[in-house]
Amino acid sequence: MKAVLIEKDQIRIVDDQPEPARPKGWALIRPRLVGICGTDLELLRGYRQFKGIPGHEFVGEVLETDVPSLAGKRVVGEINIGCSNCSRCRSGLPGHCSRRRVLGIDGIDGCFADRFVLPAGNLYPVPDAVSDERAVFTEPLAAAFEIPEQLHIKPGMRIVVLGSGKIGTLCAWVLAKMAGHVALVGHHPEILEKVRFPGVNTSVPESDLTDADLVVDATGSASGLESALRLVRPRGTIVIKSTIAGRHEISLTSLVTKEISVVGSRCGPFREALTALATGDYPVERLVDGRYPMIRAVEAFRHAATRGALKVLVSGEY
Amino acid sequence: MKAVLIEKDQIRIVDDQPEPARPKGWALIRPRLVGICGTDLELLRGYRQFKGIPGHEFVGEVLETDVPSLAGKRVVGEINIGCSNCSRCRSGLPGHCSRRRVLGIDGIDGCFADRFVLPAGNLYPVPDAVSDERAVFTEPLAAAFEIPEQLHIKPGMRIVVLGSGKIGTLCAWVLAKMAGHVALVGHHPEILEKVRFPGVNTSVPESDLTDADLVVDATGSASGLESALRLVRPRGTIVIKSTIAGRHEISLTSLVTKEISVVGSRCGPFREALTALATGDYPVERLVDGRYPMIRAVEAFRHAATRGALKVLVSGEY
Repeated sequence: MKAVLIEKDQIRIVDDQPEPARPKGWALIRPRLVGICGTDLELLRGYRQFKGIPGHEFVGEVLETDVPSLAGKRVVGEINIGCSNCSRCRSGLPGHCSRRRVLGIDGIDGCFADRFVLPAGNLYPVPDAVSDERAVFTEPLAAAFEIPEQLHIKPGMRIVVLGSGKIGTLCAWVLAKMAGHVALVGHHPEILEKVRFPGVNTSVPESDLTDADLVVDATGSASGLESALRLVRPRGTIVIKSTIAGRHEISLTSLVTKEISVVGSRCGPFREALTALATGDYPVERLVDGRYPMIRAVEAFRHAATRGALKVLVSGEY
Repeated sequence: MKAVLIEKDQIRIVDDQPEPARPKGWALIRPRLVGICGTDLELLRGYRQFKGIPGHEFVGEVLETDVPSLAGKRVVGEINIGCSNCSRCRSGLPGHCSRRRVLGIDGIDGCFADRFVLPAGNLYPVPDAVSDERAVFTEPLAAAFEIPEQLHIKPGMRIVVLGSGKIGTLCAWVLAKMAGHVALVGHHPEILEKVRFPGVNTSVPESDLTDADLVVDATGSASGLESALRLVRPRGTIVIKSTIAGRHEISLTSLVTKEISVVGSRCGPFREALTALATGDYPVERLVDGRYPMIRAVEAFRHAATRGALKVLVSGEY
């Protein structure tokens, strides 16, 4: 089959990749639309010494399954595959299983290919009301919904989101809906039109923001955390929403003197994200910057890596 | 009056220091016993470019006050002095007032002197059952009690305390009493006898500890935080209990991938600490490594700075 391969910082299309075997209980899936995520770009920069087929944000069609209710269905899917046996898997946290595999990121090939496989239990049928172009945002929108899973968000809270990329924008939208108002700090004026949303204010310069109850750092940089430590009020909370790879020099003095809580935040609840996408409240289509057929995936990755790009999609057709 | 002065990394005794003026509503206090804290040693190493009289862990006698019930009383006192007017002060958080002064640390002379002053509202009379030698531990024991103020400590939680110094030991004692069991990791075998306490296990090597629900980092070093990030379970909590001064190179990747919460923790509730000291449950006297008259305070500081030293006390008499 055809597939996109990343190996040693190189990306290419191959057409002789063997189709994945479908283990019992798993589903064979044909991707309809796949999103390029910041993590995919990190893999291409050498993160995790990745070698294989990337891709984990998808909406697809189930071709083969042991679960009759999923046969032929349009689905999205959770990306963590736990061992099913350890205490974390048994307590419903396969995403924190120490032996987990992660679709297109760690230990299992992803969805930039003609076919891929996932356990049937990871899949969620997509309501007819949710188009492919919206459904492909389920995974990143779920990541934004992880914040209210972890923290008590209250109306009127003073919230600042640092970083107006894809994940920062989705976090700002989800939190603005819950708290009524969010300040979103970004450095790409051309993006501001796309991220507008009731209650999201992009016009306040970072230097005018102080005493936030909650700062979400979606910059993916250690300097974002230092900004957050400065902006947050004493006893406030910082959520780090994007992986900060590598080692960084940082001062943590104010973390203690201001008694701040810093909370790491990763994957989130698919069901809430799908429900939210069905309502049409979140204008995710506006974040799409480009759409390419799979055969032009290399070009799509290049587009996604340009400064200020938001979401670039790759369709399963050629 | 006589006083201990720190200036430009130097410490000396002077005898011509003017007595402090007592503002209305404040108390003039004669120290009976003063503890040397890690922060005092940091001040001597240049932290905050400190210049003045250090000292904030005290039990003293009220010499002058406008509050009749405090006159002549033996007292301990909270060390933060807020502006009384800002929203933080009005919401009961003078310790987080941006214009706060901190006794012997920031903006106001401390208690290594014949006399010092504090607002009457900061003072707590010491019950007769609590000796000076126990009462002087109120401030550091209160700092340990800050952890259960911030987090829900449950019986049976897996807790690791990193650092068997004064504050690490007090945290281990308080948490062992609440959770039933704590692993305390230290590198000074000579200390282990002093820190023994029901439920505190000092015999497990750090490499055998995993999957802690809560790790308290009382090492005062950035490497302590990295150890904590390794030891804590996914979605677990790290409390940083000692100030980490300066900039440090650190990897925060696992903070996000394991969705860890890192909580800064500083001063705590005096009332709970005094109550606990009155019960006699905590054998704080065992942590006293030396006792010096004020005139030998320089020697006392030198003793406190030696590797493996726990608490060194300085008495108000000469």
